[in-house]
Amino acid sequence: MLGAIEAGGTKFVCAVGDHDFKIIEKVSFPTTNPQETMQYVFNFFDKYKKALEGISIGSFGPIDIDKNSETYGFITNTPKIGWKNYNFLGEILLRYNLPTYWTTDVNASVYGEYVLGSGKNLKNIVYYTIGTGVGGGVIYDGKLIEGYSHLELGHQLVNRHAKDKYSGNCMFHENCLEGMASGPSIENRFGIKGNNLDATDNFWDIEAYYIAQSAYNSTLFYAPEAIIYGGGVMKQDHLIKKVKKEFVKLLNGYRPIPSIDDYILSPKLGDEAAIIGCLALAKKLIVQE
Amino acid sequence: MLGAIEAGGTKFVCAVGDHDFKIIEKVSFPTTNPQETMQYVFNFFDKYKKALEGISIGSFGPIDIDKNSETYGFITNTPKIGWKNYNFLGEILLRYNLPTYWTTDVNASVYGEYVLGSGKNLKNIVYYTIGTGVGGGVIYDGKLIEGYSHLELGHQLVNRHAKDKYSGNCMFHENCLEGMASGPSIENRFGIKGNNLDATDNFWDIEAYYIAQSAYNSTLFYAPEAIIYGGGVMKQDHLIKKVKKEFVKLLNGYRPIPSIDDYILSPKLGDEAAIIGCLALAKKLIVQE
Repeated sequence: MLGAIEAGGTKFVCAVGDHDFKIIEKVSFPTTNPQETMQYVFNFFDKYKKALEGISIGSFGPIDIDKNSETYGFITNTPKIGWKNYNFLGEILLRYNLPTYWTTDVNASVYGEYVLGSGKNLKNIVYYTIGTGVGGGVIYDGKLIEGYSHLELGHQLVNRHAKDKYSGNCMFHENCLEGMASGPSIENRFGIKGNNLDATDNFWDIEAYYIAQSAYNSTLFYAPEAIIYGGGVMKQDHLIKKVKKEFVKLLNGYRPIPSIDDYILSPKLGDEAAIIGCLALAKKLIVQE
Repeated sequence: MLGAIEAGGTKFVCAVGDHDFKIIEKVSFPTTNPQETMQYVFNFFDKYKKALEGISIGSFGPIDIDKNSETYGFITNTPKIGWKNYNFLGEILLRYNLPTYWTTDVNASVYGEYVLGSGKNLKNIVYYTIGTGVGGGVIYDGKLIEGYSHLELGHQLVNRHAKDKYSGNCMFHENCLEGMASGPSIENRFGIKGNNLDATDNFWDIEAYYIAQSAYNSTLFYAPEAIIYGGGVMKQDHLIKKVKKEFVKLLNGYRPIPSIDDYILSPKLGDEAAIIGCLALAKKLIVQE
């Protein structure tokens, strides 16, 4: 039996599943402080302690994935109270002493889409979540790209739309994707959430322009077979079509891509991508050991 | 014995070398039309026909590296007269019938720096050439990243510097790195080549700002251990220091990187990177076969 922890900044999802990634039981609870939240995690997995073979954690970040680092397995520089420099992996290992895969929540999602979702049968895919935060993960040749640290595609630079006067809400960077296109950036502009903003509002062309720049850059940086866009903002169904249109304009025929409708995709697994991805990463760990 | 062809848009370099990548003989000639240029290539390698075990080609682009494509091995959509849709790999295979590695010139350079240059002993590096064209190559976990097509890092979007009124000279994209920071873009701005522009000119801060954006994006997209900047424009020795400074400003402490002087590097092999890389890629091919 495999264990999965999707540790989001707002809520945690814990699940156990079989080797075909079928979910046996799943629970969800809000992310409060580590003591309280982890007690829920332990309560859930303790029930399966004897059957569990491995666990995978997909965590909100930033996290330390450098195995040579003293803080490997920690959530690092988060503004989230109580979680800064929290030894997440250490606590799980201490309790269960099982093979444990440690990565970001968005990496778990891209892996889920890769094994069972929109990226099934492909080897090179990029996945973005456009929501409260913006992040991305990449599968290259069947493996997650994880270098010196995890990727941070949400903070790539974008060109400002000529009609957009908003200054961005990233505290680190001017004109980064998250600052200009995240859910909170929409709310800051209009005082209402994106899902309450009319689908005919001209703003969606601006939003699509920012997201399309990430598709454009990802095309040049990874030459993937598909780019998948998930997350809360993408639940506006009209948006993906606009993203495709802006992307084609930006690329301007410069290089070959697969047909646009096979290239820019919605996630097939929806909100289950990260949990399925965790199960798959946990399985991979056991098979490799 | 290994064969190497660095096929640049301006000149070709052909070499033969041993398994330690020591160059035995090297020749160079201008890139004219395929008939003439290839005759020089054949004249050179025919001498070594009996000893040659494999050849690697690092070609100017765009090229087709999709093995499932009908035009695999072709130079494709180049404006260079005579070379458009030229079956480069096919001609070499026809003449020598040897294992032949087919990639871009910048991929050959990054591979050279990886095996013997500034990226030696590292596993994840990014290499940019900032010259007549701008291009980049990436080694991830010891291998070139080559997806659906080769990478096109030269055309990544950059934010325009507030003091730069130049509109860019890329015929495909507004505000792309090549359009704003290539050698010809400098010449277009000032009517003189970059190497004749005073080192104290304020423009170099603008140039560094564009190049630093590529270091910033590469940091987020690949989390590499080092980023190497070569090419004609980087021969202005004062420039790399400015790039580091602008990069640190852009990153704004957002994520960990190695020490800046170990992270943004000049190429150790200089102009030999591509030829050494070709020899190494040819060797890899033979060892794998």
